[in-house]
Amino acid sequence: MNTRPKIRRWAISLLSLALCAGTACAQRPRARDLGIRIGTLAPGPRNAITDVSGVGVGHVTLISGEGELVVGKGPVRTGVTAVVPRPDDVYLNQVFAAAEALNGNGEMTGMEWINERGLLEVPVIITNTLSVGEGYSGVVAYMLQQNPGRVPLPVVAECYDGGLNDIAGRHVKEAHVIQSIESAAAGRVAEGSVGAGTGMRAYGFKAGIGTASRELNKAQGGYTLGVLVVANCGRRPNLVIDGVPVGRHLPTKASPPARDGSIVIIIATDAPLIPIQLRRLCKRSALGVGRTGTFSRTSSGDLALAFSTARRIPRDAATVDTVHTLRDHRLNPLLQATVEATEEAIVNALCAADTMTGRDGRKMPGLPLDRLVDIMKQHNRIE
Amino acid sequence: MNTRPKIRRWAISLLSLALCAGTACAQRPRARDLGIRIGTLAPGPRNAITDVSGVGVGHVTLISGEGELVVGKGPVRTGVTAVVPRPDDVYLNQVFAAAEALNGNGEMTGMEWINERGLLEVPVIITNTLSVGEGYSGVVAYMLQQNPGRVPLPVVAECYDGGLNDIAGRHVKEAHVIQSIESAAAGRVAEGSVGAGTGMRAYGFKAGIGTASRELNKAQGGYTLGVLVVANCGRRPNLVIDGVPVGRHLPTKASPPARDGSIVIIIATDAPLIPIQLRRLCKRSALGVGRTGTFSRTSSGDLALAFSTARRIPRDAATVDTVHTLRDHRLNPLLQATVEATEEAIVNALCAADTMTGRDGRKMPGLPLDRLVDIMKQHNRIE
Amino acid sequence: MNTRPKIRRWAISLLSLALCAGTACAQRPRARDLGIRIGTLAPGPRNAITDVSGVGVGHVTLISGEGELVVGKGPVRTGVTAVVPRPDDVYLNQVFAAAEALNGNGEMTGMEWINERGLLEVPVIITNTLSVGEGYSGVVAYMLQQNPGRVPLPVVAECYDGGLNDIAGRHVKEAHVIQSIESAAAGRVAEGSVGAGTGMRAYGFKAGIGTASRELNKAQGGYTLGVLVVANCGRRPNLVIDGVPVGRHLPTKASPPARDGSIVIIIATDAPLIPIQLRRLCKRSALGVGRTGTFSRTSSGDLALAFSTARRIPRDAATVDTVHTLRDHRLNPLLQATVEATEEAIVNALCAADTMTGRDGRKMPGLPLDRLVDIMKQHNRIE
Amino acid sequence: MNTRPKIRRWAISLLSLALCAGTACAQRPRARDLGIRIGTLAPGPRNAITDVSGVGVGHVTLISGEGELVVGKGPVRTGVTAVVPRPDDVYLNQVFAAAEALNGNGEMTGMEWINERGLLEVPVIITNTLSVGEGYSGVVAYMLQQNPGRVPLPVVAECYDGGLNDIAGRHVKEAHVIQSIESAAAGRVAEGSVGAGTGMRAYGFKAGIGTASRELNKAQGGYTLGVLVVANCGRRPNLVIDGVPVGRHLPTKASPPARDGSIVIIIATDAPLIPIQLRRLCKRSALGVGRTGTFSRTSSGDLALAFSTARRIPRDAATVDTVHTLRDHRLNPLLQATVEATEEAIVNALCAADTMTGRDGRKMPGLPLDRLVDIMKQHNRIE
Repeated sequence: MNTRPKIRRWAISLLSLALCAGTACAQRPRARDLGIRIGTLAPGPRNAITDVSGVGVGHVTLISGEGELVVGKGPVRTGVTAVVPRPDDVYLNQVFAAAEALNGNGEMTGMEWINERGLLEVPVIITNTLSVGEGYSGVVAYMLQQNPGRVPLPVVAECYDGGLNDIAGRHVKEAHVIQSIESAAAGRVAEGSVGAGTGMRAYGFKAGIGTASRELNKAQGGYTLGVLVVANCGRRPNLVIDGVPVGRHLPTKASPPARDGSIVIIIATDAPLIPIQLRRLCKRSALGVGRTGTFSRTSSGDLALAFSTARRIPRDAATVDTVHTLRDHRLNPLLQATVEATEEAIVNALCAADTMTGRDGRKMPGLPLDRLVDIMKQHNRIE
Repeated sequence: MNTRPKIRRWAISLLSLALCAGTACAQRPRARDLGIRIGTLAPGPRNAITDVSGVGVGHVTLISGEGELVVGKGPVRTGVTAVVPRPDDVYLNQVFAAAEALNGNGEMTGMEWINERGLLEVPVIITNTLSVGEGYSGVVAYMLQQNPGRVPLPVVAECYDGGLNDIAGRHVKEAHVIQSIESAAAGRVAEGSVGAGTGMRAYGFKAGIGTASRELNKAQGGYTLGVLVVANCGRRPNLVIDGVPVGRHLPTKASPPARDGSIVIIIATDAPLIPIQLRRLCKRSALGVGRTGTFSRTSSGDLALAFSTARRIPRDAATVDTVHTLRDHRLNPLLQATVEATEEAIVNALCAADTMTGRDGRKMPGLPLDRLVDIMKQHNRIE
Repeated sequence: MNTRPKIRRWAISLLSLALCAGTACAQRPRARDLGIRIGTLAPGPRNAITDVSGVGVGHVTLISGEGELVVGKGPVRTGVTAVVPRPDDVYLNQVFAAAEALNGNGEMTGMEWINERGLLEVPVIITNTLSVGEGYSGVVAYMLQQNPGRVPLPVVAECYDGGLNDIAGRHVKEAHVIQSIESAAAGRVAEGSVGAGTGMRAYGFKAGIGTASRELNKAQGGYTLGVLVVANCGRRPNLVIDGVPVGRHLPTKASPPARDGSIVIIIATDAPLIPIQLRRLCKRSALGVGRTGTFSRTSSGDLALAFSTARRIPRDAATVDTVHTLRDHRLNPLLQATVEATEEAIVNALCAADTMTGRDGRKMPGLPLDRLVDIMKQHNRIE
Repeated sequence: MNTRPKIRRWAISLLSLALCAGTACAQRPRARDLGIRIGTLAPGPRNAITDVSGVGVGHVTLISGEGELVVGKGPVRTGVTAVVPRPDDVYLNQVFAAAEALNGNGEMTGMEWINERGLLEVPVIITNTLSVGEGYSGVVAYMLQQNPGRVPLPVVAECYDGGLNDIAGRHVKEAHVIQSIESAAAGRVAEGSVGAGTGMRAYGFKAGIGTASRELNKAQGGYTLGVLVVANCGRRPNLVIDGVPVGRHLPTKASPPARDGSIVIIIATDAPLIPIQLRRLCKRSALGVGRTGTFSRTSSGDLALAFSTARRIPRDAATVDTVHTLRDHRLNPLLQATVEATEEAIVNALCAADTMTGRDGRKMPGLPLDRLVDIMKQHNRIE
């Protein structure tokens, strides 16, 4: 991402800004603000994937139109999120990685190569199911823009947002993908109905992007691990937050969605892990997902990707790399961190996303945070 | 198991019976008896893996000696459990199966063949880590006893019971393995410190064998799914029961075990599933494990095996078999059933197992059920 | 493919027809025409994947320009190939499938879902590496054209043709992808420099599309199995044809390509196989690849997909499907057929492809068939 | 293996020595002695797995009795082979490893843990199918003998030798397994009917243990890679040696075996590879197997294990290990070496094994080496 210092060529759409203003997306509290404490490890300073040094996140949010669905016209409730693993060019400076499906009813391109060689060489793109092609083309275009001789194998994951969005209208374009990469930045990560999360819902509530992190103490190695999810999974009655069956206490007359959603999980850490170890983090993220109550329905695309920023593997250089690998027994705090941060990221996605009205006037309610707090108190889980 | 009608050639050891009497193993209530209701699906009549018609379970429990460890002498706190998938000879009448690791620090022999071909042709044996060889030899001996021309690939799984048991003494013999198979029966399944569960502990409490089942309603297909676990995983502070962080409310001064344990999960169903579908059940069992609080430590051998009794595949007959396969969207209740039954089986293992004293006078406490009920009430989870 | 009876909306490009005429692509003999007999099983009537009833193949060939590379202008030497598994709409009438990598330095989207559920629901698209996005979008567009409510997960595989083609110019468009699907037909399959094979080379010779089939005799079940490859792998000295080290006898002064290529292998059969069995066919295709001499270099994307047309799984109907599955020991002739047909398909690709001049005047020679015959005779392999 | 300097407690059986003398097992030439040159890379000094520094091989050969099979009496034609990855104690000094099945109709215990963590901590044992239990127990006994607190997960692989051997008699005992480990040594490796290879046959000829190696030149890194196989696979008509269809030229009236055999492949290298890279070597060994003509029948257990001696991972020490990993593009010579050495090891097994008479007077002919040379000459492959 040697382009970050450049002026961003794609202005964030006014509509997107308008949305943020209108729904006060930045103002809804996060889970911890409500007193919910998932697990026992401490979060990092931003409680976000960007607590892992060098990791950037970029969102492009596409919102326009209202009312009846007209394919190609809207309403549009979708977007793109890029997770950039390094501040410099990841094609030239690869990182160890692994990917794994809990339930593979979804797409994450590039998994074969990641799992064959253990290296990630591209920014990770997440968007809607029918826009994976544009996601792929967008990464290709971005890479060719850096150097026309490049032959990347893009990593593009997806969730289905057709409940609110004119998904068949395919409103995500290559330019949005490039924009998401170029706008990726460290620091605070917007959550909820932004980027790839714009039109997503989970557990019968509006959801989308969520993030969380954990910092190990010095005795545990002092490493940081962060998770970003696009939460689009689960049905209302199954929702569990920190062990409390919240969903059963928030009944709804709405019928469950015609299509069950999915979850994409991106795990970043600065711990020195080799690919076979990163695969174990991916597997643990399933436990975090499970703790929010879903049993991963058959139509859910639940895919995880983990990478370690500890070691940069230059594309063209030495014949042998010296790398570091954490001892097996030292992995445990990172496994725990993965479970906790995945669970909290999902809850953060639910907390962050406000009610949204989409195609055909369909309204997806935001999680009622006051009710949530009441329920948690009734179960003696917050004071 | 055409031997079941025969007189059992191996008498259940008196010691084992004595144990049951002494520790009143049958008398501790199960989770449901305490008012704990995991999930929303209904359990089968016995709430056990044997609710799946034709499935038999046999335990051989080896308990002898007290006091200081003398390798080869004892104290002995170990055993064997056999899960027999069919009432007739499974070598001749195979069933579809799949196996999968959540974390592979353990052994389940036969996994390569099961996952290559999708058929189970042997009774499943579970025992302690250092007795897998005898488990394997025992199944071979059992099979050769049926017909000396057989060449089975046994399925033997294990957990580590060396915290209480003279594991290096290798007290499990081939004869015990054969006995476990021959004594396998339908009906009630003894839980806790029996069979392979004899010396096991989980979450800082005595544990071992646990089982549970779910029956789908008619609209869901009316299928039954049962789970049997050998629960030997997790540390005290992580214990969660039905979402309540029970472990944090039951602190202990005891240091965690030198070796973390494992969990073996056997899933049986009468739903018509082909191997690729059974693999999905295995993956869901990880979610059930995760809901009891563990994050699956790196030294844990967390291995699941699932089989379907719906269709018997005769060893030598037709050239083409006609089989049935549930539609994808109909799998969901079975995925849910797997998560729920796995979670409940673990809790049942903890409820069933009473305090046990083993090698070097080490005492592993049983879960204090009155305290458990109090904690669940405090969290508004039982009345 | 309910569109086949329709008038094809995309005329086959004149350039493509011109090429066929100019290079006499239909006139080069196939391996069998030269007397080369790979293996011992009999080929089907067309010795092509289309010998499997219902399977269609469609090529769109893009050839234009000459001389120096100007990104976006050309020269263009690329294309798209569609393999359509059923004559009717595969989205509504799915088939069992499996996919597997020999070496995953390549993309085949959709693999996670295929291997999770075992069903193929889309036509399979093959194109160049940087056009996978367009391949994906093209399948989405095609599916939405059938019904705007569809949410397919496309299967798009690729090889690198940048040695001859202006790959960074991304000349494949959605329309070409749709055209390849709509033009898919049973019958003779054009081989060599057509469709996705247009710009490909293997073993230091021009290569591309190749196909072959095997018909089992009645005692073996009478099934047909066909393979289609995009052959783009291997270096000259490694080339082996029917066991003869042909490559060593055809030395070249040309340096090996800067990028090693890949191979995509599509296997179709009418034998009643369930997904776990189809996966075994995929693994066997690696043996066929290996017999042509490559050791599958690290930068090779060697990906196989197998499907069975024996059973149509309707998208929305019964709750339980009755399917058939071949007995394990009856699989052997199909395993052999896969190895033989894969090997022969690669040789056919080499035989079919004539010399081509591409970007920057680079000339990739066709395999000299007269020399090949001489070498085979010297090794006593043809008369 | 700190026991190597000790006096071997188990004398090599006189019968075994007698066999060697009688059949002149050491005197049959190897493939290279006959002028057969597989591939283009140079073999190491011994053309054996022991060319990889530190690797030891130990055989225990059990031969006794003649005539009619009496289960438990004989005839005995079996044994055990140990491959010891390091000269010191591998439990304390682990090595990176990976394992993979080409076709999983066989057992290699320990694969789950190897593939979860990427470390090998035990000597590798190979024996007959029904003696895997004893192999497992033998490794446990050996490890407990070093230190009673050890909890190893043994790696025991098998092939079926019941065509010649009283396999149901289970003549391999724990003591033989320990003996095989303790007798493991560097230097020349006996091939053919020794150790686990004693009763094995391949391609309708007597076969068993075979080994070969490759040394990369300095520009390629100067690494050594060695392979040891127990060759027990394939049928006569399929046999191919260096591309020549030898089997078709050596017809037999004998019917093919009632049970098809398997192949176990152990790959050792001193190249600095991490587990994800070692897995790729395993996959390449399948190509070497395929080049000898088999298509890996459904009843074949074709399992490969690869390890790297480049880095010793101490069991209890640092929290972070520094390791080395070869760059991706530098892997190619090792992939080629794996294919070549696997193929040559199989041919060596066939060359080394003389005719053997086993149970019920069954005679398994040795490959007629003079005929082999004639056939190779006819095909212009040796001079």
